[in-house]
Amino acid sequence: MKPENLFTEAPFNPDKEFLETLAEGTGFKLNRIVSHGHRTPEGQWYNEPKDEWVALLSGKATLLIEDKEIDMTPGSYLFIPAHVEHRVEWTDETCETVWLALYAEPSAQ
Amino acid sequence: MKPENLFTEAPFNPDKEFLETLAEGTGFKLNRIVSHGHRTPEGQWYNEPKDEWVALLSGKATLLIEDKEIDMTPGSYLFIPAHVEHRVEWTDETCETVWLALYAEPSAQ
Repeated sequence: MKPENLFTEAPFNPDKEFLETLAEGTGFKLNRIVSHGHRTPEGQWYNEPKDEWVALLSGKATLLIEDKEIDMTPGSYLFIPAHVEHRVEWTDETCETVWLALYAEPSAQ
Repeated sequence: MKPENLFTEAPFNPDKEFLETLAEGTGFKLNRIVSHGHRTPEGQWYNEPKDEWVALLSGKATLLIEDKEIDMTPGSYLFIPAHVEHRVEWTDETCETVWLALYAEPSAQ
């Protein structure tokens, strides 16, 4: 049993953040996301049917949640209820930004 | 909506790690644990009815999982199936060691 590492370099695709599922079960899914200058395309918003707990572990990002800009630095975490519109407005182009996102059934919170 | 931070200093109790639940739902629970030199008492083991996904975010620790010593450094993560005996053998006394632990029903994995 050898640990893996959340900060392992991710394959870079300029068009798309890297995404992998670390744990999954009835009612939840834990994803690791690695951004590198990626942002949600202009005019697009996430409107998820699930609640989301999201943490930024390294790097830097700005989220837009409804009309609020939120700066995320290492360790920042937030709860975004299902159907609250949000987008990734900016991530640092000079380094990897590593996220954990835990999705759950909205009735679960 | 203001983010909280995983690296916020935790109240120190020499007898017990700091523990708080960050998210919880049907079939899962996400805890933040802060150790500061804490270890599982001599001769004691965890034997959990749940699967556990555990990550070390900062600090340093050694886990003992059955008869294997596992060094955990920032970013290290592991999956520990339900009923696999494990203990925290050592955590750094000179700084906080911050963990995330996600517990889930074993059937869920």
